[in-house]
Amino acid sequence: MKFGGTSVGDVERIARVARIVAAERKPGRGLAVVVSAMSGETDRLVGLARASAGETPNGGGLPAKDFNDEYDVIVSTGEQVTTGLLALALRRLGIPARSWQNWQIPFRTDDAHSKARISEIEESELGASMDAGVVAVIPGFQGVTEDDRITTLGRGGSDTSAVAVAAALKAERCDIYTDVDGVYTTDPRIVPKAQRLEKISYEEMLEMASLGAKVLQTRSVELAFAHCVPVRVLSSFVEPGEPNPGTLVCPEEEIVEKQVVSGVAYSRDEAKVTLLGVEDHPGVAAEIFDALANGNINVDMIVQSEARQEGRQNILFTCPEREAGRAAETIEAIKTKIGVDEIHIRRDVAKVSVIGIGMRSQVGVAKTMFAALAQKGINIEAIATSEIKISVLIDAAYTELAVRALHTAYGLDAA
Amino acid sequence: MKFGGTSVGDVERIARVARIVAAERKPGRGLAVVVSAMSGETDRLVGLARASAGETPNGGGLPAKDFNDEYDVIVSTGEQVTTGLLALALRRLGIPARSWQNWQIPFRTDDAHSKARISEIEESELGASMDAGVVAVIPGFQGVTEDDRITTLGRGGSDTSAVAVAAALKAERCDIYTDVDGVYTTDPRIVPKAQRLEKISYEEMLEMASLGAKVLQTRSVELAFAHCVPVRVLSSFVEPGEPNPGTLVCPEEEIVEKQVVSGVAYSRDEAKVTLLGVEDHPGVAAEIFDALANGNINVDMIVQSEARQEGRQNILFTCPEREAGRAAETIEAIKTKIGVDEIHIRRDVAKVSVIGIGMRSQVGVAKTMFAALAQKGINIEAIATSEIKISVLIDAAYTELAVRALHTAYGLDAA
Repeated sequence: MKFGGTSVGDVERIARVARIVAAERKPGRGLAVVVSAMSGETDRLVGLARASAGETPNGGGLPAKDFNDEYDVIVSTGEQVTTGLLALALRRLGIPARSWQNWQIPFRTDDAHSKARISEIEESELGASMDAGVVAVIPGFQGVTEDDRITTLGRGGSDTSAVAVAAALKAERCDIYTDVDGVYTTDPRIVPKAQRLEKISYEEMLEMASLGAKVLQTRSVELAFAHCVPVRVLSSFVEPGEPNPGTLVCPEEEIVEKQVVSGVAYSRDEAKVTLLGVEDHPGVAAEIFDALANGNINVDMIVQSEARQEGRQNILFTCPEREAGRAAETIEAIKTKIGVDEIHIRRDVAKVSVIGIGMRSQVGVAKTMFAALAQKGINIEAIATSEIKISVLIDAAYTELAVRALHTAYGLDAA
Repeated sequence: MKFGGTSVGDVERIARVARIVAAERKPGRGLAVVVSAMSGETDRLVGLARASAGETPNGGGLPAKDFNDEYDVIVSTGEQVTTGLLALALRRLGIPARSWQNWQIPFRTDDAHSKARISEIEESELGASMDAGVVAVIPGFQGVTEDDRITTLGRGGSDTSAVAVAAALKAERCDIYTDVDGVYTTDPRIVPKAQRLEKISYEEMLEMASLGAKVLQTRSVELAFAHCVPVRVLSSFVEPGEPNPGTLVCPEEEIVEKQVVSGVAYSRDEAKVTLLGVEDHPGVAAEIFDALANGNINVDMIVQSEARQEGRQNILFTCPEREAGRAAETIEAIKTKIGVDEIHIRRDVAKVSVIGIGMRSQVGVAKTMFAALAQKGINIEAIATSEIKISVLIDAAYTELAVRALHTAYGLDAA
């Protein structure tokens, strides 16, 4: 079971978490609970660390290599406090419980401080204690290196911690309690008729997560996929005993009724960069995208088309909005060398995607999408596809309209 | 070097501590710094722990055995944060530094959670790092058990941590930075002519500490005495480079000019319990003080005197003020069995003491004390002596007058 920062935001909420944990206990079932820092606490600790390192609003301060290890020492205390508080709240309900710090388990990571990756979890002592009926309370988002230094997994790493613990313990399931009650066919704020999915496959969830649905972190879904850990997303604000089915993220084989399209996702954090009049000779695309990769620009869609001028082509690509300026500078620097006439950036674009494992065995899915958008008069600026998704780039002003139209077109609206 | 909670109270103060540490560096000298939690932080964490355990103003909550281990997990994070912050502040000055959590050293204690006693410090890895020029920053007030659970030493245990680290490292000295600039002949708030002592012996310091001078914790002085660690008490508010000699607490042999009296101490946390008309038969005193010991009453002075009534005696003893009520109840319970006519409690009393290793070889020290008090018309209600101190119990209203008179009588006033 995993509870995030708002779920453990104060002592009363921690007491509710204890009641939720209590309701999950049954004979022969061991429980481990992964917790975040109380909401606001991580920000406070990050602020202290930065101030001590001399970071000013204009930059300055220590280089990352001299900062990140002690930053981890400071920031990791937030979750440690929550583990102790939840253990006490559980004991108050008469439930045996204890906190396990990562060095006590040990929960190993590499030494990439502040963004470490999990390497190994030694579960024998932890598992024995759980088998003896003691609820294990574990701090999320952190670990310990081979030479016993404290690390953190980077912001939001708690979901990943929980899945990793579940995988190590070969748990029947990993329940992620959050502030929504499951994964929806699309954003319910845009489409009130959006429906909670009972089940979704790892592959679909990965596309949903990386396409802008913020329910689970991509990293945690990847890990669950790799280790076949069933993950359930459910609400931490439902009183114990009340129905709280959530959404189960599971292997594709366990989903009997495969929807052609399971969900519609969107992202407004997009920019379109257009290169006009690029010289059309072999290797020019490689040069452009090599330069962008070296500049750490996350390029997503790419469309190449013939230009009016002979021997020239146009290249269009998308990247996260905040990287667009850097992308243009990167191209500017090699502009004369590779031969580019003009560079344009457009920021008011959005990406809308339909996702579904059923696409693999269905034809006509794209046709439905294009028809639905055309009917609303929405122009498509670029298209990208994978085995289980189709994404289109459109004018950002039409985002909601497009999402609603697609939700209806694929029969996802609730009755 | 050890810095308390007010010395590391915010990021600016931590930066000053870093400058003080920087000034102490010299080739071939390794430095370890023991730090407390930022002031206020421990109280905040204790509050959270108690709230989670369900402690109400009327009591309630978990029993100590189910509370103290997780309390230690929660409260110990306060010092951990400071270690990271100071390590960063030192690096900002270009000084290699790292934090060492107790489990990383390891710094072992017994398993008496929330009031653990230090058992062993493994200094090899720590010492090697210090020898390599890296300043070690260590959280005070805590440790780790043989089976790797976090413990705390009880409030104010940071001085003791520092002395223990110094002893393990066979350090040349343990410098305790505090909010006073040394140990004084008496409380300067009462006697403006009080003088800072250049040196004081462990034995004298122990008497000073336990008699109410709040500069160093008794436990830390005992430990320094046992391991012959020279301890220097000095101010953390003097800018680095300015004179800051402090007071050296050291073996008696190192003090060449032994004063007959080195200091005058006082304590107002005293109550006098008088038992009138106690039956005068063998074993009655044993019964009374056995009962008080079983009731955890800290009896200090004891005076026995004949009563007017034949076959009866009066017994007077002192104890800390907050224990006086319990002491009276304890006696009340066995009153008829042992034969006591009346029990009186007086709370407005104070204990004033003169301390000096020179007393051992000097006569007439007590005479000077009694004469000085008599001259001011101060009545002595009880007397207790040890090899190096004489204490008297007086009316609390005369405390300042008595301290001043004795300070003058023993020639301690500054010129």
